[in-house]
Amino acid sequence: MPRPVAFITGIAGFAGSWLAEELLGEGYKVFGSLYDNEPTDNIEILQRHLSLLPLDLTDAAQVAAVFKKTKPNYVFHLAAFSSVGKSFGAERLTYRINFEGTLNLLQALEHAPGLKKIVFTSSADAYGVFSPAGKTLTETQPVDPASPYGISKAAAELLCTYYFRRNGLPVTVARSFNHSGPRQVDSFVIPAFARQAAAIDLGRQKPVVKVGDLSARRDFSDVRDIVRGYRLMAEKGRPGRVYQLCSGKTVSIEQVLTTLLGFASKEVKITVDKSRLRKNDIPVLRGSNRRAVQELGFSIRYTLKQTLRDTFNFWKTTLSSGA
Amino acid sequence: MPRPVAFITGIAGFAGSWLAEELLGEGYKVFGSLYDNEPTDNIEILQRHLSLLPLDLTDAAQVAAVFKKTKPNYVFHLAAFSSVGKSFGAERLTYRINFEGTLNLLQALEHAPGLKKIVFTSSADAYGVFSPAGKTLTETQPVDPASPYGISKAAAELLCTYYFRRNGLPVTVARSFNHSGPRQVDSFVIPAFARQAAAIDLGRQKPVVKVGDLSARRDFSDVRDIVRGYRLMAEKGRPGRVYQLCSGKTVSIEQVLTTLLGFASKEVKITVDKSRLRKNDIPVLRGSNRRAVQELGFSIRYTLKQTLRDTFNFWKTTLSSGA
Repeated sequence: MPRPVAFITGIAGFAGSWLAEELLGEGYKVFGSLYDNEPTDNIEILQRHLSLLPLDLTDAAQVAAVFKKTKPNYVFHLAAFSSVGKSFGAERLTYRINFEGTLNLLQALEHAPGLKKIVFTSSADAYGVFSPAGKTLTETQPVDPASPYGISKAAAELLCTYYFRRNGLPVTVARSFNHSGPRQVDSFVIPAFARQAAAIDLGRQKPVVKVGDLSARRDFSDVRDIVRGYRLMAEKGRPGRVYQLCSGKTVSIEQVLTTLLGFASKEVKITVDKSRLRKNDIPVLRGSNRRAVQELGFSIRYTLKQTLRDTFNFWKTTLSSGA
Repeated sequence: MPRPVAFITGIAGFAGSWLAEELLGEGYKVFGSLYDNEPTDNIEILQRHLSLLPLDLTDAAQVAAVFKKTKPNYVFHLAAFSSVGKSFGAERLTYRINFEGTLNLLQALEHAPGLKKIVFTSSADAYGVFSPAGKTLTETQPVDPASPYGISKAAAELLCTYYFRRNGLPVTVARSFNHSGPRQVDSFVIPAFARQAAAIDLGRQKPVVKVGDLSARRDFSDVRDIVRGYRLMAEKGRPGRVYQLCSGKTVSIEQVLTTLLGFASKEVKITVDKSRLRKNDIPVLRGSNRRAVQELGFSIRYTLKQTLRDTFNFWKTTLSSGA
């Protein structure tokens, strides 16, 4: 039997690199796309097992050509303008890449021979505002996004549903909640704190960490569990259906910080930086993974502590070897 | 007191022309925009009371310049790629005009001095698929659009909500249900049948009408009631809020046809054209206008019979005077 062929857009990104590893381990032939001059550090050790192609998602003709050439059975659409925070100042670009880029991908795959499934990676940010605060979100929660990033994902989901309905394009939508782990850029909270804990441990930073409001609670998973979820969605997900990928549990940012600082070999002082004290708009973000567990056999294998330790060690290695 | 200044995008369109008349009657100074080479027949009799400007909504700089020049207190955003049917074959253009065009408008008005309200005209097509079939829709119904037009409106609504939340831009969203009346183009069902009834009455068509499935029930209003609703939203609507504009009652397409053919002076034979027999995906579409009635004082003043008669007479005049 020939190996199933997977295509990952955004393969050199954080989740993309872990998904590539997951799929290679499961026997897939893996293609992936890179945008112009994208760094490939995340997939360096895998690179000789992968077939990489340049791709500008906003160029419809190029998107069509790439799939025509590679004929994937499974497409994992991870490439995106992925920073919620930066999306506020880059609204047009966010829509161009995340909405129009997804449109280009769906149109390119509309009559693709051999295609078995498309996994579109949306986000819990599509939900945005909801009430009551603290409720456990399920897939039936109406979206009400509060950022250009959230809008772009919610709107792209509408495209996915429409392309499925229109002619049965086998696309499933993952709404993943916060996930972290080694390789995530340190504009996200866990690597930001992990990096500081590692720097303190190495004696490269004074044992002081400045923080803002730490009370927000988030549903964190390990990126390696999330990408396994993506693979399970490709293999077993029902087309036209949304699956939340999350742990179902929440933890406060304060607890995350305390755990990470506990890995450092020194006593660390936490000081409050009032300029960072803006209360988070969404105090608690928790999802149910029930549908994914029941329909896909999804499971959480990494404890948060393991994720945090691995992320801390990743930054220790990175800081030691690098600049 | 100076007259309030209104700006209508799409002023020469069907609803736009009636809104211009409504606002002039209420003492507004009225600006309006036309796209390239747009016919202005609909506003011919009003033209000397209006200030018209060319505007390509997809050109952000031009949109900004137009509002800087006219400084409206009230903006009614009606310009759109407005055909659901044609949107299937013009997906990109639909998103470009309806989504990006709305983004351009919101950004242009973000810090506009003197601005009191923006009325964004969305549509019941944003709802798309819902269950159970036949339920009466309210503003809390989650959207699940089934056409590029519906997607474009649902996505543009997300922009409106976001711009309101971000810095209080006073934008309200109208979800109008089916509305008709004189001047509507005959690709829509009521003018299509009204035109045939008028042609038969004038002896210009054999007394035979070919039909498809007529069982679908729709919530029809008169365009003159709907545009009064738009004005009430500008004057009293709460920013950040959605209002359904509709009659709250449904009628079958068959009943619409029978009424229209009853205006013709001849006996008309209805024959079923099997090629048009595709069942409508949404058998019943009915909204509640309760919120608009309670919060805006919205009311339905035109009976459906009056709307149909006026539309029939419009087509008789048009066919008699024209080709």
